[in-house]
Amino acid sequence: MDNEVRVIEIKKSVFAANEKEADELRDANKKKGTFLLNLMASPGAGKTTTLTQVINKLKNELKIAVMEADIDSDVDAIKIKEKTGVESIQLHTGGMCHLDAEMTKQGLAGLEGKDIDLVILENVGNLVCPAEFDTGASKNIMILSVPEGHDKPLKYPLMFSICDLVIINKIDVLPYFDFDLKLCEEYVKMRNPNATIIPISAKTGEGVDKVCEWLRNQVKLWKGSK
Amino acid sequence: MDNEVRVIEIKKSVFAANEKEADELRDANKKKGTFLLNLMASPGAGKTTTLTQVINKLKNELKIAVMEADIDSDVDAIKIKEKTGVESIQLHTGGMCHLDAEMTKQGLAGLEGKDIDLVILENVGNLVCPAEFDTGASKNIMILSVPEGHDKPLKYPLMFSICDLVIINKIDVLPYFDFDLKLCEEYVKMRNPNATIIPISAKTGEGVDKVCEWLRNQVKLWKGSK
Repeated sequence: MDNEVRVIEIKKSVFAANEKEADELRDANKKKGTFLLNLMASPGAGKTTTLTQVINKLKNELKIAVMEADIDSDVDAIKIKEKTGVESIQLHTGGMCHLDAEMTKQGLAGLEGKDIDLVILENVGNLVCPAEFDTGASKNIMILSVPEGHDKPLKYPLMFSICDLVIINKIDVLPYFDFDLKLCEEYVKMRNPNATIIPISAKTGEGVDKVCEWLRNQVKLWKGSK
Repeated sequence: MDNEVRVIEIKKSVFAANEKEADELRDANKKKGTFLLNLMASPGAGKTTTLTQVINKLKNELKIAVMEADIDSDVDAIKIKEKTGVESIQLHTGGMCHLDAEMTKQGLAGLEGKDIDLVILENVGNLVCPAEFDTGASKNIMILSVPEGHDKPLKYPLMFSICDLVIINKIDVLPYFDFDLKLCEEYVKMRNPNATIIPISAKTGEGVDKVCEWLRNQVKLWKGSK
């Protein structure tokens, strides 16, 4: 398999009106029938491993592509391409700590004409800045991992309040950490009563089917409402 | 014990010349004999737990204070005060993803006249933005935790290149994660050949004495070169 991945050097948006840009991008994607998923998390929460699992379960029913945002390296895009075989683009943010709608649009231009059902944007590993910029995604999701602690919704309120789905990853190591799953779910609901919460282990595969089911439904709804 | 902590609402710096501001703050701290340590890490890497351990081992020989930067909550400042008894100030960044020198100075003003030997600034949990702004600290350190993965120096180059000490925390859970300690150390050295690397478990206490020794020496050097 050819493991070379394309790298797109992203330039900082010159549009002050990010929200307008984001809405336009959403509209354009809806017309094309492309669902754009914005995936956020801390460094090391398991974004790439979770994506690999989810993509391998969904790739026969949906045409999927991945955009990996990273400050500098290409390790994630290469990993996704190696482990799933789907189209994978690396977006270099040039030191930027987040993506905005214009930067996302630059990335999507690299997938033009490919008729993708589901584009997954793996945002920069950061619980602060990515939450502040609408990327134009159809839905926002985030992964909180058990080793990070159950208090994170208290400390990063905006991130939890804007996510439609909160995945709690690495539940296979629950016995080794002081992580209160029930309390964490309460904190998430405090920030966002409508959030769906799915505990998983991307390592063992536990719970991944539920994430796939959620995503499958979201893509169906999005395409249906075209 | 009184567990109320002071909260200072930090305003965004109006100084464009952050570097100049940072140098001035360092000079002022040197004159006062105050060592300012800037501690950075991802959310959940164990900053507060590590601090608690280190402070309890050093508080009889050094007068210590802590400034906890957080977007919104007070949980860390309260935890530090409860578990160590040292002066602990909460800095609210108002959504900002990092601290700069002016913001740090606003925090230090809350400790004026207290003759502190060592002020520890726990920066916002974020591997990107805090690395870009000189806080005026005497030294920068960061904590990478085992569950985050050994590839992080590849993905967050600036953070690793500006830190004098890299603590690798949560080594008690090494058996449950695919974390290559030797490879991680190589990656850190690639970013910063002069970095000191100390593996610890803030939970069991393993390695914490080495961090204390490093810190004790740094404070001594700083005060000696006044």
